[in-house]
Amino acid sequence: MYKKLGIIGGMGPLATVNLYKRIVSLTDAKKDQEHLQLIIDNNTKIPDRTSYILNKGEDPKEELIKSAKILEKSGAKYLVMPCNTAHYFYDDIIKSINIPLFNMIEETTNYILKYYPDKKIGLLSTEGTAKSEVYDKYFNKNGVKLYKLDKDKQDCVSKFIYDIKKGDDKDSINYFKDVLKDLKNEGIEVFILGCTELSAAYDIYGFDGNFIDPLDVIAKKAIEYGGKKLKSTN
Amino acid sequence: MYKKLGIIGGMGPLATVNLYKRIVSLTDAKKDQEHLQLIIDNNTKIPDRTSYILNKGEDPKEELIKSAKILEKSGAKYLVMPCNTAHYFYDDIIKSINIPLFNMIEETTNYILKYYPDKKIGLLSTEGTAKSEVYDKYFNKNGVKLYKLDKDKQDCVSKFIYDIKKGDDKDSINYFKDVLKDLKNEGIEVFILGCTELSAAYDIYGFDGNFIDPLDVIAKKAIEYGGKKLKSTN
Repeated sequence: MYKKLGIIGGMGPLATVNLYKRIVSLTDAKKDQEHLQLIIDNNTKIPDRTSYILNKGEDPKEELIKSAKILEKSGAKYLVMPCNTAHYFYDDIIKSINIPLFNMIEETTNYILKYYPDKKIGLLSTEGTAKSEVYDKYFNKNGVKLYKLDKDKQDCVSKFIYDIKKGDDKDSINYFKDVLKDLKNEGIEVFILGCTELSAAYDIYGFDGNFIDPLDVIAKKAIEYGGKKLKSTN
Repeated sequence: MYKKLGIIGGMGPLATVNLYKRIVSLTDAKKDQEHLQLIIDNNTKIPDRTSYILNKGEDPKEELIKSAKILEKSGAKYLVMPCNTAHYFYDDIIKSINIPLFNMIEETTNYILKYYPDKKIGLLSTEGTAKSEVYDKYFNKNGVKLYKLDKDKQDCVSKFIYDIKKGDDKDSINYFKDVLKDLKNEGIEVFILGCTELSAAYDIYGFDGNFIDPLDVIAKKAIEYGGKKLKSTN
């Protein structure tokens, strides 16, 4: 039967808006009542994840757990978290609640291994996500190694993400496209949009190739687990 | 100090996405932590409001109140409700909670009376919102009468809204634009986008004239009351 979804949000708020919008637009519904029931805690008190991982900032665990508990108390039967980096704290969160938290990184990994086995996979993300190896962990479990970007390319991707956050990416988009071209020449066949800013950029620019968006993977999983119908796509 | 906002949502889900996105994009914030803390209950179990008002459907009050209480319990210090028609049940909701529910209709009325005094005002909405006179109530209190659309024009606006919901408005947009032209010729100087589908259409088509969007009015009010900074606009 129908289950209510809880979203640990606010990391950043626009990424959460983005996931919410995708859940709504990917649901096959002709009226409000056919959509997924869900609750979002846009908790902007959660400290910066990357800063903590790089040993500089406040620990985000307490606020992450607070949000998870509020959502559980409010009737959520399962949770998702639209922030790649926050999955670094996944184990701490699930210890504190009695409902499942779907792991966006693991779901994305499983999706790629199912639909793109034996492909060379590259991760596009912030330096934080790359360094904390949240994706590598699940790929390595399955004996698959992610292709590593060299320092110049990683810097370029990081700058592009940072420029999107500032709303000023008209120059760096071209450098980013050059990086994509180079990576394809190096043999990369599938790209993970491992940062929610890149999901947004993909919606706008529509890069050519196999791009896997973790927000889409988790949105579809959430709709189906909640008992609602997925819109058929071609 | 900072206060957490609660949003009674899901009427429909895309309108709630729209309000959430506006709150985020109208906030002057350079990092996640400078955004408004908020919680959204996307309660798609709320029965159709218009159906009930027209004596055909299930009563939505119980689910509306349930959402309001969940949000209060989850730490919200004030509420908003991004659905024009749902304001028909405003008095029933506030009786059941101990925090304020900002009235989008009243706030929009006050905004228009402040910035557009002595103007001729027209309401663009579904027939349900027009007939239930939720807007008229607040304008009449201030001695102002809303301009009434005749049956043909109201039907055309209703059809446009219905076609937007279906994602098929490429023909009716032209009829809608003709209605706007006629209304301007009849002396209407300010238009209320009194249906969240029209807010979305305005974002896409950008009609020429004075259009007041209740979602913008309530988004700005929510940001400031929550203690965050509004982006300066020109």
